[in-house]
Amino acid sequence: MKKNRVNLFQDLPGHLDQEFVETLQAHESFRIERIVSRGHASPREFWYDQEEHEWVTVLAGKAQLQIEGEKALVTLCPGDTYDLPAHTKHRVAWTEPNHDTIWLAVFWKSA
Amino acid sequence: MKKNRVNLFQDLPGHLDQEFVETLQAHESFRIERIVSRGHASPREFWYDQEEHEWVTVLAGKAQLQIEGEKALVTLCPGDTYDLPAHTKHRVAWTEPNHDTIWLAVFWKSA
Repeated sequence: MKKNRVNLFQDLPGHLDQEFVETLQAHESFRIERIVSRGHASPREFWYDQEEHEWVTVLAGKAQLQIEGEKALVTLCPGDTYDLPAHTKHRVAWTEPNHDTIWLAVFWKSA
Repeated sequence: MKKNRVNLFQDLPGHLDQEFVETLQAHESFRIERIVSRGHASPREFWYDQEEHEWVTVLAGKAQLQIEGEKALVTLCPGDTYDLPAHTKHRVAWTEPNHDTIWLAVFWKSA
């Protein structure tokens, strides 16, 4: 599912039961996704434990990440970027309930 | 020059003689750059002719790309994305003079 000329701030889904994930670029070496959250968070005991490295930015809205072993949540406002090396256990603790949070994420594996 | 926790909309240079290019991620297989234009455009006869593929988006401001062989300029408003396969000759025809145009660009080579 590759769309080339999406507008990152538009073309939003009308109804969102769960986070909306859209692959914008998919190549052997990396992948670009747009993710739209509307108050969604990871389930309480769920942790992402990815084989891929991730570089993520919030373009609109607001989100909080929980990183395993860190007491303070990481708050991401528009433009904030964050690095998640592979196997950095993390979860989405919170996203703004009344606005769309639009993420842009790039995933890749070590060479 | 790799900065991990830049805010894409902040940390802008005070004075810009020319476009400001900052590498946010540099890996063997791809590179992520933030580019800030302040009314800058490519020289009149200059064309980018890149060996790398490029996926670009304008996050703030407004820009117009000229693509070789195409009459109409491509206008990019915030959130608009555009694909520039390798050796797509192009130039930046115009960027907004009174506001910063902030681009996010991902470059990669074919496997």
